[in-house]
Amino acid sequence: MKSAFLSICLLAFLPAAAAQSPSSVRVNGQRIHEHLKELSKFGANPQGGVSRVAYSEADLQGRQYAISLMKAAGLDVHVDLAGNIVGTRAGSDASLKPLLIGSHIDSVPMGGNYDGDVGSLSAIEVAQALQEKQITLRHPLEVIIFQNEEGGTIGSQALGEGLDEKHLNLVSNSGKTIREGTRIVGGDPNQLASARRQSGSIAGYFELHIEQGGTLQREKIDIGVVEGIVGILHSDVTIEGFANHAGTTPMDQRHDALLSAARFIEKFNQIVTGVPGRQVGTVGWIKVEPGAYNVIPGKVVVGLELRDLDEKKFVGLFDQIRAAAEDLGKINQTRFSFTDPVISHPALTDKGFQKLIGDTARSLGFSTKVMPSGAGHDAQEIARIGPVGMIFIPSIGGISHSPKEFSRPQDIENGANVLLQTVLAFDKK
Amino acid sequence: MKSAFLSICLLAFLPAAAAQSPSSVRVNGQRIHEHLKELSKFGANPQGGVSRVAYSEADLQGRQYAISLMKAAGLDVHVDLAGNIVGTRAGSDASLKPLLIGSHIDSVPMGGNYDGDVGSLSAIEVAQALQEKQITLRHPLEVIIFQNEEGGTIGSQALGEGLDEKHLNLVSNSGKTIREGTRIVGGDPNQLASARRQSGSIAGYFELHIEQGGTLQREKIDIGVVEGIVGILHSDVTIEGFANHAGTTPMDQRHDALLSAARFIEKFNQIVTGVPGRQVGTVGWIKVEPGAYNVIPGKVVVGLELRDLDEKKFVGLFDQIRAAAEDLGKINQTRFSFTDPVISHPALTDKGFQKLIGDTARSLGFSTKVMPSGAGHDAQEIARIGPVGMIFIPSIGGISHSPKEFSRPQDIENGANVLLQTVLAFDKK
Repeated sequence: MKSAFLSICLLAFLPAAAAQSPSSVRVNGQRIHEHLKELSKFGANPQGGVSRVAYSEADLQGRQYAISLMKAAGLDVHVDLAGNIVGTRAGSDASLKPLLIGSHIDSVPMGGNYDGDVGSLSAIEVAQALQEKQITLRHPLEVIIFQNEEGGTIGSQALGEGLDEKHLNLVSNSGKTIREGTRIVGGDPNQLASARRQSGSIAGYFELHIEQGGTLQREKIDIGVVEGIVGILHSDVTIEGFANHAGTTPMDQRHDALLSAARFIEKFNQIVTGVPGRQVGTVGWIKVEPGAYNVIPGKVVVGLELRDLDEKKFVGLFDQIRAAAEDLGKINQTRFSFTDPVISHPALTDKGFQKLIGDTARSLGFSTKVMPSGAGHDAQEIARIGPVGMIFIPSIGGISHSPKEFSRPQDIENGANVLLQTVLAFDKK
Repeated sequence: MKSAFLSICLLAFLPAAAAQSPSSVRVNGQRIHEHLKELSKFGANPQGGVSRVAYSEADLQGRQYAISLMKAAGLDVHVDLAGNIVGTRAGSDASLKPLLIGSHIDSVPMGGNYDGDVGSLSAIEVAQALQEKQITLRHPLEVIIFQNEEGGTIGSQALGEGLDEKHLNLVSNSGKTIREGTRIVGGDPNQLASARRQSGSIAGYFELHIEQGGTLQREKIDIGVVEGIVGILHSDVTIEGFANHAGTTPMDQRHDALLSAARFIEKFNQIVTGVPGRQVGTVGWIKVEPGAYNVIPGKVVVGLELRDLDEKKFVGLFDQIRAAAEDLGKINQTRFSFTDPVISHPALTDKGFQKLIGDTARSLGFSTKVMPSGAGHDAQEIARIGPVGMIFIPSIGGISHSPKEFSRPQDIENGANVLLQTVLAFDKK
């Protein structure tokens, strides 16, 4: 019903087909808006936003809806061995490698309607526009909806680095393991080796995404040109003091692990903010033992995270933090120890792609800003196979992973037009 | 078997009975030591110490053992309506109110063998010594083993302020409610009103206890004369920031509730230690939401505690802490709120009793120090009925509520002799 209604609307909105040169082709912003609204119904929370976690009933329904849109856009649709939805549009030059565009439609629990959805539906809209304008690219085009991005960029990782047993046994937000989930969405967990794409097998990958930070909105910039996806360092810090009676132990006789942890959190913040740059550092969780009013905390564990595009920089900060902790421990005789840092390396986007996106955006009259992505994206996994580029649009208040997540329809349309024109410009070269 | 063996040993150790004046009577330190050792078997942990939580099988066995010792000491033993074990020894003057001595034998989970046990077994030893020396006091003497001290001074509270439904429904460390437990140990939860003792109905109460702090040991003092049991203030502090993506939110755009909490914990410590005195303040527990590496903490709750003999002082410190929190919140725009403070009022010991204990201890050649008790004790509840006095002995390293809790046999014997001689001196007046 809804689709029929839309088609009628579109006939009224759209100018006559095949009358434009490629550079004047535009997406239909209203259509993307309607598709976003329709997709938002699958897993909608009563309080707003969606809980469309990978492998849930809502995820399966959302995927069916996306497949229907892809087919309507003239794409030849299949689910690959890793469970990703792939819609292909043939190119005119069979010798060329495929150009990929896409994103994901799964969400975090109590997530929003823009993270992933905007890039996925805009990629489909690009295919729809090409079909409506009867434009055939030289490159084969693949529109990909990656499975389970929020659970660890699973679908894109399956294509790039590959998944191992540890990944497959992970329990996802749906309560199902990655193995079970991959089967549910139509992949084959026993044939994942065949799902991988060889390095150099693609012409490139472009992903449109909401910024998930507030920079573009705050600085009133239309389009973010992503220079890379930051690397991440995690370490758990244990602070050992001595648990003792909170009533009978004089203040100067205490080895209070929580007091030391508090000083550490402040010091950590000072070190992270003490040098110029866009690095971020967070202490996101804390546990205290034994954890009672009347016992001086004997042991505290905190989890820290550092992110930057420059791995050397955040590793250097981590070293400073470790050294500072050693000193802090001496003040009230508590002992700091750090787990070996777990590092996810930064993934840089292609310099040529950055220029192409920037030039294209500006040619469309948009202001641009080159910026890192502080959040992880499927593009970081695909960067292992070939060159990638990312386009950011403003996210109001920088709020993400929340029902309050919001991007303005005009910003979404702008981003989709940059994606479309970037694809066309890339294809020309 | 053990009892028979002990009796034989004692015959060898003790001088001929009834040859001494009351002031030269001494307890049998070796006997107290043997009794402590025997009691420590009930609920012994494989790792050391005991888990003899109130109402457990070990507690019931320990109580039976204590009753057997009390009977052997010539006491007329019964369990009162509140479940306390009471051993009475008649006085020569029927017009005098009873003098009470005692403590408790229940422990915390993974507790030690000295907290409560020392005072209980020494009180029984005092009765034993009086019997052996055929000394009849003017006052009736009651040796009391209070039930469930560690679960909230339950037995002594039943005699003083009384227990209400809320107390009775509390689930104790044994898993049983106070109501069930009180019945199990031989009390009658339906007749607790009759268990209460009227204010003014006792001549006084003396309790010997380990210090549970390290002051006496550190300062090489033999006996602590307790000037009172500190009051306690509890409040929960909620710090509200804004949960956001830890990768995409620049450092200067954060409202990090955990960073504010860390600054609060440091400030709290500065305020508590910033004025002279023996007040203590502890932040013993902390909870953070949502609590993940990659999310800036949006909400933190911490539990704080302040203790001092002077209620005005700790209430004043609490007011300062609240004002300081208001300022801290402004730095990174987080909001502090405090629950209404829950206050347990300080309980002062009797000035005359303090002097009596101090004079007695010094007459026995012991060094003394007047000091507060940072921990709660049954004496604080009995202070509602009549004058109380407390005698502290050194606790090695101040360690308590731990299998590592330890007091030297000589210190225990010293404390028991001070208790015995204080009882005799009080009775003379």
